[in-house]
Amino acid sequence: MNKEMSETLVRTGQGTRMGDLMRRYWVPILLSSEIAESDGPQVRVQILGEKLLAFRDSEGCPGIIDEFCSHRGASLFFGRNEENGIRCAYHGVKFDRNGTCVDVPSAPQMCPRMNIKSYPCTERGGIVWAYMGPAEKMPQPVELEWATLPENHVFVSRRWQENNYLQAMEGGIDTAHVSYVHRYEVDTDPMHMGTKALDYIKADGNVIFDIEKTPFGLTLFGRRNGEPDSYYWRITQWLFPWFTLIPPFGDHAMGGHIFVPIDDYNCWVWSINFHPKKPLTAEERRDMEQGKGIHVEYEEGSLRPRANKDNDYLIDRPAQKDKRSYSGVFGFALQDASLQESMGPIQNHAAEHLLPTDKAIVMARRMLYEAVQGLAQGIEPPALDASAQRVRAAGVLLDRASDPAEWAKEHLSDGLHQALYSV
Amino acid sequence: MNKEMSETLVRTGQGTRMGDLMRRYWVPILLSSEIAESDGPQVRVQILGEKLLAFRDSEGCPGIIDEFCSHRGASLFFGRNEENGIRCAYHGVKFDRNGTCVDVPSAPQMCPRMNIKSYPCTERGGIVWAYMGPAEKMPQPVELEWATLPENHVFVSRRWQENNYLQAMEGGIDTAHVSYVHRYEVDTDPMHMGTKALDYIKADGNVIFDIEKTPFGLTLFGRRNGEPDSYYWRITQWLFPWFTLIPPFGDHAMGGHIFVPIDDYNCWVWSINFHPKKPLTAEERRDMEQGKGIHVEYEEGSLRPRANKDNDYLIDRPAQKDKRSYSGVFGFALQDASLQESMGPIQNHAAEHLLPTDKAIVMARRMLYEAVQGLAQGIEPPALDASAQRVRAAGVLLDRASDPAEWAKEHLSDGLHQALYSV
Amino acid sequence: MNKEMSETLVRTGQGTRMGDLMRRYWVPILLSSEIAESDGPQVRVQILGEKLLAFRDSEGCPGIIDEFCSHRGASLFFGRNEENGIRCAYHGVKFDRNGTCVDVPSAPQMCPRMNIKSYPCTERGGIVWAYMGPAEKMPQPVELEWATLPENHVFVSRRWQENNYLQAMEGGIDTAHVSYVHRYEVDTDPMHMGTKALDYIKADGNVIFDIEKTPFGLTLFGRRNGEPDSYYWRITQWLFPWFTLIPPFGDHAMGGHIFVPIDDYNCWVWSINFHPKKPLTAEERRDMEQGKGIHVEYEEGSLRPRANKDNDYLIDRPAQKDKRSYSGVFGFALQDASLQESMGPIQNHAAEHLLPTDKAIVMARRMLYEAVQGLAQGIEPPALDASAQRVRAAGVLLDRASDPAEWAKEHLSDGLHQALYSV
Repeated sequence: MNKEMSETLVRTGQGTRMGDLMRRYWVPILLSSEIAESDGPQVRVQILGEKLLAFRDSEGCPGIIDEFCSHRGASLFFGRNEENGIRCAYHGVKFDRNGTCVDVPSAPQMCPRMNIKSYPCTERGGIVWAYMGPAEKMPQPVELEWATLPENHVFVSRRWQENNYLQAMEGGIDTAHVSYVHRYEVDTDPMHMGTKALDYIKADGNVIFDIEKTPFGLTLFGRRNGEPDSYYWRITQWLFPWFTLIPPFGDHAMGGHIFVPIDDYNCWVWSINFHPKKPLTAEERRDMEQGKGIHVEYEEGSLRPRANKDNDYLIDRPAQKDKRSYSGVFGFALQDASLQESMGPIQNHAAEHLLPTDKAIVMARRMLYEAVQGLAQGIEPPALDASAQRVRAAGVLLDRASDPAEWAKEHLSDGLHQALYSV
Repeated sequence: MNKEMSETLVRTGQGTRMGDLMRRYWVPILLSSEIAESDGPQVRVQILGEKLLAFRDSEGCPGIIDEFCSHRGASLFFGRNEENGIRCAYHGVKFDRNGTCVDVPSAPQMCPRMNIKSYPCTERGGIVWAYMGPAEKMPQPVELEWATLPENHVFVSRRWQENNYLQAMEGGIDTAHVSYVHRYEVDTDPMHMGTKALDYIKADGNVIFDIEKTPFGLTLFGRRNGEPDSYYWRITQWLFPWFTLIPPFGDHAMGGHIFVPIDDYNCWVWSINFHPKKPLTAEERRDMEQGKGIHVEYEEGSLRPRANKDNDYLIDRPAQKDKRSYSGVFGFALQDASLQESMGPIQNHAAEHLLPTDKAIVMARRMLYEAVQGLAQGIEPPALDASAQRVRAAGVLLDRASDPAEWAKEHLSDGLHQALYSV
Repeated sequence: MNKEMSETLVRTGQGTRMGDLMRRYWVPILLSSEIAESDGPQVRVQILGEKLLAFRDSEGCPGIIDEFCSHRGASLFFGRNEENGIRCAYHGVKFDRNGTCVDVPSAPQMCPRMNIKSYPCTERGGIVWAYMGPAEKMPQPVELEWATLPENHVFVSRRWQENNYLQAMEGGIDTAHVSYVHRYEVDTDPMHMGTKALDYIKADGNVIFDIEKTPFGLTLFGRRNGEPDSYYWRITQWLFPWFTLIPPFGDHAMGGHIFVPIDDYNCWVWSINFHPKKPLTAEERRDMEQGKGIHVEYEEGSLRPRANKDNDYLIDRPAQKDKRSYSGVFGFALQDASLQESMGPIQNHAAEHLLPTDKAIVMARRMLYEAVQGLAQGIEPPALDASAQRVRAAGVLLDRASDPAEWAKEHLSDGLHQALYSV
């Protein structure tokens, strides 16, 4: 990837080309539960380089507005969330969830000149989403399967990762790394235990990958030996511009991620578990809340993992030696974070040497880059039609002659109405 | 405020235009009590971007000199304060309180080439002041009322605030914000309780402000309904270039502040309580030492408040909800610091939208800017005559026809010889 | 020292002129004991601005390689040290101690394109040394006396110092400062007690210095009154480009240092004690391990001293007053670090005023600068012949007519075969 393409893909602030592209999609901002209460505490959140304030107003509607008052620039974090708006604590200037200035004490006639930035928002899958692009271009809200399921089928968390979103997302696209840094984690995670899938994975380390470009992004096909007459296929998706889907093991929950820039040196990694057919059990939910599986334990009062770069992710060298952890770091999320953060805040693409197993990464980069270039020429970005998101990851045994791409086309698209495939 | 004017006002290092202006006045450096002892420990202090060392010599005189030795640049903080000078710990080069090199062991003939920067200093009001400007332009020491009272009438503290002095000082000039962020603090502070002033303030939230330009800076007049035939006027001053005065409630102590740049991103906020007619009580003094009122509690061993931006000023959301604190932050000083620091190290003036209640701020900015421009053209700055500082803040009931400006001219200037006005 | 010369001497990264010069010598990287175990935990270490990884392979050989994988740039710190190489935890790419890529799972044919940087290394004196310069120019390994003694004669430690190597090394060359910041430390250190040398030092504070340029660098001669008919000479060396030697007191161990850039704002200070004739006693070794003498106590899990600039080196003002410590800081190393770090990450040479006692520093700077200039013109640097390093520091009584330089030439060069001189 040359310097120009690298710079194009990693810069996402206001006025950047990649930033313009991302702002054409609904952006996950924070968990609905982080602003659970009407007139409850507002929350600061930085997204795509913009410092925003999220709150739930007296009517129960979420608002995503500029963090700062238009008067003197004080943070509305210290303001009062009451009577359908946030009142700045400094001089009482008040804004509603649309950023409209609804009160200037002592000078109400000034209101029309005091409005602040706000973004339309919606709630799906336990997440508050904002649309940060041009009003006339707003697409339908997301229709990802997990975002449309009943609440008790889904668990969602977000965590701070200290590097550019691109190298984090590439870790999500790149299923080849699972056999290395996650090797012993896959072996021992309760959500994998006792499944045929785990047997196939342990028996055949030599995965053959194939990748298909689709209207929504990419479908990845990973082939292992299954039964004597079949292959075990793991079929995963990257959905434009930042979603990934992960197939289940047996009857356990499926998974997914979203990778959203905080700024050019930090990102939010969202982790989702969901079961299309049944609620998560209390035990599953408790494990997820405790940071098991693809989730993490946090530093107190923050969204930073407790194991982080300042403590070398609590690396455990004896556990690495004993093959209880491949790298000495525990947990899927922290194994990814430790490696991706170690690449630097922005990976030096000039120094990388890509391998055949990086084919999906190369294709994703190219699709993003082409969409950026297209947008600059007035060509609408891909996957704006939310129905394109109605796909499903799967783990499936197919007889050795079957074409998995044909099979996926028939069985996994518009997945909300299809059967589950897992072994 | 345009970019040029903004940059002019916020930059105060050596060689800047605003820095040149400020260096024409006596600058508060540190508390006399911080270097209480002759030949006691020296203290580092940064002022107007300059790293300085303060110490008290064998004769009991304070010295303000360059922090660093002229020989190899080691900090004199590690030196020995003994026999009327600081001896560098590295090679024994010694300087007296005038920065004169008085010993170079092994090469005494080098002394005359080794002198370091020093500033004349004086002590008033429990503060060591330095004059950092051209020698021939040195004005008389400050004659602020609190600086000339007996020691036991006065309590002074300083705290580190993590933003440019200008936005801190503007908070001090801007009395309009008291009705918002300080609302419940004013209600409950012991120094306000049981006074008529508090009754008037609670009964009339619609303050009308008038501002007058004076030889020393600005006088602000805040009008509320008093008795049926009178108004309750709160009259406060901004004294060029960085002082403010605060009227008392009833027979309690008066107040004042000084806002002094550390560098362009940090400032010292000085807070003064004083009673012109009587010593502070032991209880008042103990409260102030414990950080009550306009003072703060510190992080151990530092001048940084214990509640600071790293812990969101210990914001208490339930207290905000219950109207025990307007913003959830407690304490006048921290309420100000939280908002002013949230504006960023240097407020983005291009984004502000000033209101009619910002009139005093606009006037103060203009006076500072005109003084800067004047100085560049050889015009002497305002308020160099220390007698101009002999004014007093007041809270007073005047009949509704009275002109408070006329009244103030008669009663509050040369305040050291006048009656106290407080209700 | 002018700006150009200053910049030349302090910049040591890849491609700098001083960096090129330093890379012509063997560079101490870390203690052998930090990678004690074959296939044990690898260690990150930054040297001359380069981020490196040190490990001991299955054959027990140390390897110094690039910290980052050539594939995607992940840190090999999280990799697996096993079967004669480090395997990256991300995708399993593996490198041996020569940086040769020995495995690319799924694409072994790519190996030849994946090699990473490595440096030849050797172990002497309990240190792993690397040669980071052009292969055809590799000199013989160091022959410093302490590096060639039996292991039990030597104790070595390294500590992080937060400033440029030059001002740290100049402190090592500059013996004049011993009479100041180290005054009371010299008096009370057990390794000085009860020796004639200490008596001479306490009796005569007026040291006369002479310096001689030598093939290996500089010899410094410090003269004090000895017995009525003799002088007490302390003879120390600076060995090109970063070694110093310290004479013993009585029959105690000798000392030495190495000053190696981490980057331009940090350096490793190595401290060595050794006795040419006998093993260190258990008590001496325990004291050194506890940070006594020229060594330090560390912050837990780091090579940063426990007393550091964040805590003002635990300065003890009463101890300074009582003359138990000259600067209030305890320990030779921390006394040096406190002063040298206080000069700023890179000393501002434009502001210094050198004295006659700085003659050795001036000569060392000039030798380094001339070597840099020479190298650019194809002239080989000095002291590449390791036998030049076979010198020894001494403290000796010579009759008053003797020329110590003549004496040193006869008695201290090729020191490995000579007698010890100490009083």
